[in-house]
Amino acid sequence: MRQTFDETTDPSFGAKHLPLVRAEMAKQGLDGLLVPHEDEHQNEYLPDANERLAWVTGFTGSAGAGVVFADSATVFVDGRYTVQAKAQTDAALFARVPLNEQNAWLSKNVKAGQVIGYDARLHSPDALDALRASVEKAGGKLKPVDGNPIDLAWSDRPNQPQAPVVPHPDKYAGESAASKRERIGKAIAAKGGDVAVLTAPSSLAWLFNIRGGDVIRTPLPLGQAIVRADGSATIFLDPAKITDELPAWLGNEVTLEAPAALEGALASLSGQKVVIDPAISSAWYFEQLEQAGASVVRAMDPCAIPRACKNEIEIEGSRRAHIRDGAALTRFLHWVDTVAQENLPNERAIVEALEGFREATGELKDLSFDTIAGVAANGALPHYKPVGAKIRPMEKGSLLLVDGGGQYLDGTTDVTRTMAIGEGTDEQRRMFTLVLKGHIAMAVIRFPQGTSGMQLDAVARQPLWNAGFDYDHGTGHGVGSYLGVHEGPQRIAQWGTSQPLLTGMILSNEPGYYREGDWGIRIETLQVVTAPSVPEGGERAFHGFEQLTLAPLDRKLIDLDMLTPQERAYVDAYHAEVWAKVSPLLADGVQKDEAALAWLKAQTAPL
Amino acid sequence: MRQTFDETTDPSFGAKHLPLVRAEMAKQGLDGLLVPHEDEHQNEYLPDANERLAWVTGFTGSAGAGVVFADSATVFVDGRYTVQAKAQTDAALFARVPLNEQNAWLSKNVKAGQVIGYDARLHSPDALDALRASVEKAGGKLKPVDGNPIDLAWSDRPNQPQAPVVPHPDKYAGESAASKRERIGKAIAAKGGDVAVLTAPSSLAWLFNIRGGDVIRTPLPLGQAIVRADGSATIFLDPAKITDELPAWLGNEVTLEAPAALEGALASLSGQKVVIDPAISSAWYFEQLEQAGASVVRAMDPCAIPRACKNEIEIEGSRRAHIRDGAALTRFLHWVDTVAQENLPNERAIVEALEGFREATGELKDLSFDTIAGVAANGALPHYKPVGAKIRPMEKGSLLLVDGGGQYLDGTTDVTRTMAIGEGTDEQRRMFTLVLKGHIAMAVIRFPQGTSGMQLDAVARQPLWNAGFDYDHGTGHGVGSYLGVHEGPQRIAQWGTSQPLLTGMILSNEPGYYREGDWGIRIETLQVVTAPSVPEGGERAFHGFEQLTLAPLDRKLIDLDMLTPQERAYVDAYHAEVWAKVSPLLADGVQKDEAALAWLKAQTAPL
Repeated sequence: MRQTFDETTDPSFGAKHLPLVRAEMAKQGLDGLLVPHEDEHQNEYLPDANERLAWVTGFTGSAGAGVVFADSATVFVDGRYTVQAKAQTDAALFARVPLNEQNAWLSKNVKAGQVIGYDARLHSPDALDALRASVEKAGGKLKPVDGNPIDLAWSDRPNQPQAPVVPHPDKYAGESAASKRERIGKAIAAKGGDVAVLTAPSSLAWLFNIRGGDVIRTPLPLGQAIVRADGSATIFLDPAKITDELPAWLGNEVTLEAPAALEGALASLSGQKVVIDPAISSAWYFEQLEQAGASVVRAMDPCAIPRACKNEIEIEGSRRAHIRDGAALTRFLHWVDTVAQENLPNERAIVEALEGFREATGELKDLSFDTIAGVAANGALPHYKPVGAKIRPMEKGSLLLVDGGGQYLDGTTDVTRTMAIGEGTDEQRRMFTLVLKGHIAMAVIRFPQGTSGMQLDAVARQPLWNAGFDYDHGTGHGVGSYLGVHEGPQRIAQWGTSQPLLTGMILSNEPGYYREGDWGIRIETLQVVTAPSVPEGGERAFHGFEQLTLAPLDRKLIDLDMLTPQERAYVDAYHAEVWAKVSPLLADGVQKDEAALAWLKAQTAPL
Repeated sequence: MRQTFDETTDPSFGAKHLPLVRAEMAKQGLDGLLVPHEDEHQNEYLPDANERLAWVTGFTGSAGAGVVFADSATVFVDGRYTVQAKAQTDAALFARVPLNEQNAWLSKNVKAGQVIGYDARLHSPDALDALRASVEKAGGKLKPVDGNPIDLAWSDRPNQPQAPVVPHPDKYAGESAASKRERIGKAIAAKGGDVAVLTAPSSLAWLFNIRGGDVIRTPLPLGQAIVRADGSATIFLDPAKITDELPAWLGNEVTLEAPAALEGALASLSGQKVVIDPAISSAWYFEQLEQAGASVVRAMDPCAIPRACKNEIEIEGSRRAHIRDGAALTRFLHWVDTVAQENLPNERAIVEALEGFREATGELKDLSFDTIAGVAANGALPHYKPVGAKIRPMEKGSLLLVDGGGQYLDGTTDVTRTMAIGEGTDEQRRMFTLVLKGHIAMAVIRFPQGTSGMQLDAVARQPLWNAGFDYDHGTGHGVGSYLGVHEGPQRIAQWGTSQPLLTGMILSNEPGYYREGDWGIRIETLQVVTAPSVPEGGERAFHGFEQLTLAPLDRKLIDLDMLTPQERAYVDAYHAEVWAKVSPLLADGVQKDEAALAWLKAQTAPL
């Protein structure tokens, strides 16, 4: 699955499509049209066919929105994308406004009496309510589109993806789909529902132990399901995606229907209590259910927590994936520390080198996201991707930040390491060590049941804060099991996450520091929440984290004087574990690499 | 102001009053009656006249509820008060149920058709809604009382308190009442209001720069006010409390009315937009305003944040109060470490000694709460008060935990110190030092604007958590300025506090550890949030904490091997500050005490 909408898209792209959309709007009598980035599946990655915002405006960022009027248009983008939006959109055609000002902007700029079209499939109910309130405040009104004008104007629109949907065997999933359906059925009943409508492709993937390939980077089957309290279910999937083995794999209690049957199936829920998640299901579902006379139970997707809490088989798979991935990473880091220090390759070559080592494992299904390699000032851009003119070669005296991950059948990885190009300066060591201290504090923390990531976030920031520094992103995100590399509801962040961390949840631990115009530092490992246990000599049971990611830290960047004895012992123990688990793969098998093995030995020796 | 309802109340008390209340209930045709602990002012401390729950049941705890039926009655108490409730209530007359099960209990035990009386003045709207839902779930219904049956039955009910209301001079308040009224008027307008109804006596105290004496431990004037957007106001106060100087102090824009005029004044707000805080104002106000046809704007009391953020004069006053209080504490701690180590006085004598040293300052207006002194196992009860048979003498080899504070015109103090009785054991040193490490981490932390206490709480717990220990209370509460020793909305706790910490807020920092049946440890200082500034060598501005409390830590309980060099330096710097600020008061003046001075010199020497 390749994306065609990437950062090379230029302003001519939107300029060419805008008039076509306006013509379709005019046919429907619309003065304006809301264009969210989100599609009908509300995922992180969209198939090309659903890149409506990019098609109309040229802007290809992973978040944003637009509004088109007959004689003007505006794109709304967040701070990460200001520069990119400027490069990709024609300023004569598109005003640019911060994304968080969208509603205020609408309430000021919509004109009284204007009719603004919206496509209910693309907005969450809460987002749509806010947009409606803003438009009505201005005296305008929202009107559902009669077919999305963009889709109607887009004559060469790609087809919806039709990647085959395949079984995800129990040896990876760790629990049969029948068992999962039974407990989700009970959970639906416990929430007071007769059925649940699942609109998250990741819930389909998890519940039915299936995987697809409809979007890049995440093995999702795009589709929906209706699950009943008795554990039976109907899945709505494009018949072209249904492999021969699928019906038998799903079993007798699961019916397959074409996507066109969904609307009728929702209509047939009249009088039933229907569990549906307003955070991830678009307003269209709520409108359909209300029209059908169903009784809507707004609740978290019943698969969300069970999916987030990995079972023992999934955790064991993740450990295995991380050992394999750790060997690939070690080969890469060895290359960075030797060949690359001489050749000074550019970021594109660095990305390709890492991807090559991951592919050489023979088990890589996909990357888990586009690899980030940031040399010097590019490393200070947390969401940097090495594309086009920005690509820099390695520079002596600076730092290299590399963030990448793989999708393996047994687990999803995501790891960031920061390497000195040359010996590292005192200032680089100071900042790296402050970040490392926060990273260690989070890695070793124990915490009582019920603790949320919001309560823990400051633990990783404390050393930076106390020295007058910070980083402008969360400390950790949830990670799926051969699913999304960003998976909720668990996270470790300053705001908006009251979800307690539960046994088996996988999260990243990735504090960083970004010196604008200079270099960036991030240290990221994945870790899994352990079952509550009583620390030695203690009296209460606490959760903790088991480290999954296995890749050495750059010892040239550690200022030993800044570490406590406990922190130093942590690094030594972590390095000893990396050596013990990764070295056998470098000594033998498809990843055999004697030079990397010798290098790893030295890197993982006690500090 | 003395309390008569204390822990010495016995079961005969409730037994004697219960039939009287039932008789009044019968007259009103009520099958049941809700008896909350809260009174019409929703404060921490109640005047005797409003101790309705205690009068009916005998239970005198600071939180709880009751329900009385014709042939049964139940008290609802939290875990802190299980033992006390058992001692104070007659098991033949009163069932005892956990407080957090009150609503579930009602929905199970109310009988269909029963009519349960409630007094709208005593319940917050949210609490009343929950109670109503529980009763209705059981098929019962709530009915407003026609005069509270308890008040009608209580023939020897004390009068409402009539302590004089006096000016709180600008030299302590730091801002004139006229200035405060002007900015609160603007805040009311900014919230979309024409007027605000202030029902919190602490808001009256703060806004009008007045203090009263209607309840113990907090210099509150019980009353209400209506403040208008233009800054003018009407205060409802018992005329008996109005001192001669008060009208002139309040000025021309403030009118005084008797409490009886309140109902009419609310009725006159017809058509107006009225700001009122549903968290602290009882349901009665909302009912009155709705009947009047006013438009209710539910919002935080507009005085809450301005009151919480102390101005420079108030902070300077607090520093002064803490130096004075610190000298009294030093004299006390010296006494504990010398005379008491020989005499082994009991907890009552210890409390009296501390109170005596505070009174000897000549400036103590009241304690800020009942002094806690817990020897050995009593120290492991976080809410212990030395009363009755539980009182223990000091025991060699154990610990003494003392928590107390004073009300001074220039500030409110609250401090806990834990002392070894004897030399301290290794285990006591280990646990004290773990608590100390968390206390220090919180004392030195810097944090960005917008950070709430919920995000910081784990910083103080981290050393305990990692060793397998915890404490079952928050890390810090807000503190008023010659007002409540517990003041919101700021707190540092694991849950329920999204309020950002703002410059000038005073909070306690009080991690602890309680070994049940053995001894307890708590280290508490008050600290004030400093304005954002850039730490040396850093790049962003952060808040921090300035330590206010000045009293030495017991060095016999510090395990130096467990402290980092930075932590050790913190203790030395803190002790140096205690010496520098407190020693002059011991060298000269009303608190002159040469023996304590010499002792302080040794206690505050570098570790």
